[in-house]
Parts: sequence; structure tokens; C-alpha cells
Amino acid sequence: MRLARVAHSGGVAFAAVEGDGPDAQVLEIAEHPFGQPNFTGKRWPLADVRLLAPILPTKVVAVGRNYAAHAGEFGNEVPAEPMIFLKPSTSVTGPNAAIKLPPSSNRVDFEGELAVVIGQPVRNVTAAQAPGAILGYTVANDVTARDQQKADGQWGRAKGYDSFCPLGPWIETAVDPSDLALRTELDGEVRQDARTSAIVHKIPELVEFVSGVMTLLPGDVILTGTPEGVGPMAVGQTVSVTIEGIGTLSNPVGAA
Amino acid sequence: MRLARVAHSGGVAFAAVEGDGPDAQVLEIAEHPFGQPNFTGKRWPLADVRLLAPILPTKVVAVGRNYAAHAGEFGNEVPAEPMIFLKPSTSVTGPNAAIKLPPSSNRVDFEGELAVVIGQPVRNVTAAQAPGAILGYTVANDVTARDQQKADGQWGRAKGYDSFCPLGPWIETAVDPSDLALRTELDGEVRQDARTSAIVHKIPELVEFVSGVMTLLPGDVILTGTPEGVGPMAVGQTVSVTIEGIGTLSNPVGAA
Repeated sequence: MRLARVAHSGGVAFAAVEGDGPDAQVLEIAEHPFGQPNFTGKRWPLADVRLLAPILPTKVVAVGRNYAAHAGEFGNEVPAEPMIFLKPSTSVTGPNAAIKLPPSSNRVDFEGELAVVIGQPVRNVTAAQAPGAILGYTVANDVTARDQQKADGQWGRAKGYDSFCPLGPWIETAVDPSDLALRTELDGEVRQDARTSAIVHKIPELVEFVSGVMTLLPGDVILTGTPEGVGPMAVGQTVSVTIEGIGTLSNPVGAA
Repeated sequence: MRLARVAHSGGVAFAAVEGDGPDAQVLEIAEHPFGQPNFTGKRWPLADVRLLAPILPTKVVAVGRNYAAHAGEFGNEVPAEPMIFLKPSTSVTGPNAAIKLPPSSNRVDFEGELAVVIGQPVRNVTAAQAPGAILGYTVANDVTARDQQKADGQWGRAKGYDSFCPLGPWIETAVDPSDLALRTELDGEVRQDARTSAIVHKIPELVEFVSGVMTLLPGDVILTGTPEGVGPMAVGQTVSVTIEGIGTLSNPVGAA
């Protein structure tokens, strides 16, 4: 199932997306999408609603240097244990919303990533138990002020600006995430082209590791790291991250 | 006013604390403590309720190396601009609740800190506007797995465990935070003894800096950094952080 959050003529709701292309429909979900969703019976053509970030997480836990070729881009190695950091919930934005470049940075990069969305409260789960904790998968862009990342040491500022965590277009609950093509395009030019099979610390291991530190709540997001090919964006460009079996997350780039 | 969150015989509520010592009373607040609180008319002796974390923030933004003498403890200097990182909301715990030492760490330290609690949604406020954005001040312990902090580079794990952000005992709305005595005791022995006047990047500057990166929401917390004297805790000990004009935050140390 494709779980989305949409703005329709009557407000905002979670919804399931059915079908593809011009015939795609969204079916409104009552309350929240966890467990077995209840449908209200209302539906709209996908083209008549606006897709929002498919979830508003209480926290976004991101993993650094989790593809060897990307770690190597900046002279680093993949750490023996996952290196985790947090992005604030206020950094989350949705498909087609502008990534806003702050005037304080001279270089803001895209980082296309596979995002794991947690489906129930979990603490100290094992890798074997991890699939039961996961609602599904979406596409993320771990936008990063590269100059500030290098200058600050800690990444709270560089990765924490409002709009620096686009998520979407929806959460796919039925995909196997272990070997999906991930492609980032800047104004249609391919800049990242990798497969999630190159992820070093795999998703079940990440869920075990993170849930061994902090309680994960429904809707919380784990960003699994970005592959090689990251690079800067300029105002007026459009960045699109596509993950096979999930969809495409596109965002224009604007000024803050 | 002292704003607390309490568990009483009928549930959980925000409350104002009036008086000191055995005569102290808590006055129940309807809904939330932002703006002008509405009182329900219910009150209890402070001794008959349990104090909880005075606020459940959507995010905790912490500032590293903001007292020169503490930065020097580990051979660092205070950075020219505030170095910010995030602690997850799930790390927040209340007064007298156990700090749980994870088995994966060999050294977990206390870090007594003054905490700023935000009172309204703000983005891009100036230092001059900062006081209007602040609800009040509370006491925090930025508990840190020191070995993992050094090993990981990013501090998401070392500072992110459940129970690693005690807050309390309440939010004092009427104190001037610029020169308060801050004292941390471990089993009654003074380990940190400083004044908030030694903070390098001052509170108005921190609010300006952080709100220039991310939208701050009511209840969000900024931890202003710890002074010198940090050190490890062991299971069975009790750590207490006292800030003049606010109160004492005490937590026993237990095993996870």
C-alpha cells in the first residue's frame, strides 16, 4: 500500500494512493495510517490533491557514511558501528515544496536517501524483529550545508535548517528495500546512481542499533545514508530523488 | 511563576508551584502553560504529587563547548559560533527518575546545565527579541556516554539514550538567567561549581542563532552548555544539579 498525507479541498488527511498515472486515486484514511487503516469512503483523483510529507515524525535519526563510495568522497571510511545524528522535526517538508537555501551557507548539497518509517513503539528490538517495527519506506533528501558541516564538527546546524528534510511522495509498505535503484537528478541530470544493496549497515541492523539507544515511536524516520555523487544545488534548480518501487521526490530550490 | 508538570491522584497536568518547604502547593493549570495559564481551581500539597519533566519538548537543541573551562577539560576551545546538536525528545525524563546507564558504555557523565524553555513559535528572531520568545528556565542534565561521544564523532548516540535528558524540577518564569550559581553534586559531593555568567554564547545570542536555523516551537528546549567538572556516574549514586533561583534536579543512577 502507498500511504500518503494530502491536502484536499476539505483539509488534510492521511490517504492511500491507488493506481498510477492519470487514473490514480487517493482514498482518505480516518485518523492515522498505523495498524490497519480505516477508510472514510472519500476519494479524489491524485491530481486534485496536494501531496504533503507522508508523515510528521517526532524524530528523524540519520546515519552518516553508510555507503563506502560516499564516505570515500570526503576521505572517510564507513565506521564499524552506525554513526547516528538527528535532524529536527521542523526540517521535514513535503514533495514539491521548496528547499530554502540559507544565506549563511555557500554550499548546500542534496543527499538522496532511502528512509525507513517506524510503525510502532519499539525499544531494544533485534535485527530479526526489525521488520515488525517498520511501517514502510519513503524517499528522503538529507539536505546539508556542506561548509557548515565541515566548520561545526557537530552537524546540528548544517543538517537542521527548516526544509532540509524533504520526505515523500508516499510510504510504500510492500517493497523489499534490500536492493533498489536510487537515483538523484539535478535539473534532469543524473548525479547519484546507486543501489540500496550497497548500504553497509543494513536496515534491520540500523533498527536494532537505534532502538537500542532510543525508543522509536510510530512515524519516526531513519535515514539510511546517501550514496556517492552528492553535490551542491542552486536557487532555481529542481532536485529529484527516485527509488525503484517507491517513487520520486522532487523539490525546487529557493532562497530562504 | 514556577511551572511544573505533575502526576496527581486524578492524572497528569501542568501546574504552578506556590510557596516553599512543607507548605508548598501545586495549582492545576487547564491545558497548557503557555501565554496566560488558566487555573482549574484544583490544588494539592506539593508533597502529595509527583513532579514530572516540566515540559515535553518537540526538540532539545544543545550547545557544545559553551564554557571555556569545560571546553578546556577535553583540550577544546569555545567555537566562534555556537556548535549545536540535538537530543531526541525520548531522552527527556523528570526529577527523581532514574538515569539508566546503557551496558554498551563504560563511562556515562553528568553535565549540569541551564535550560531555556521556548514559549512561542519563533523563526529568525534577533537577540533583542529573544526574551519575548522565552517561557522560562529550568535545570537540565545533558547526560553523555563519554566513550561513545569520542568514538562516534557525531553525538547522536552518546547523548541520545532514553533518560539522558533529565529536566526539572520546574520552569521558573521570573528569574534573570545571566549570573546564577550552578552546582552539580554527586552523592552530595560538589563536582561542578560555576556561574552562568561564564556562558560564552549568551542566551539571547543562542535564541537568535538557533531560530535562524530552525523554527522553535512552544516547549522546545535549548541547553546552554555545561561548565567544568563533568565526570562519570555509577549505578546507585544520585546526581543533583542546583541552579540558584530555579531549584534542584536530582536523579538516581540505575542500570538500563
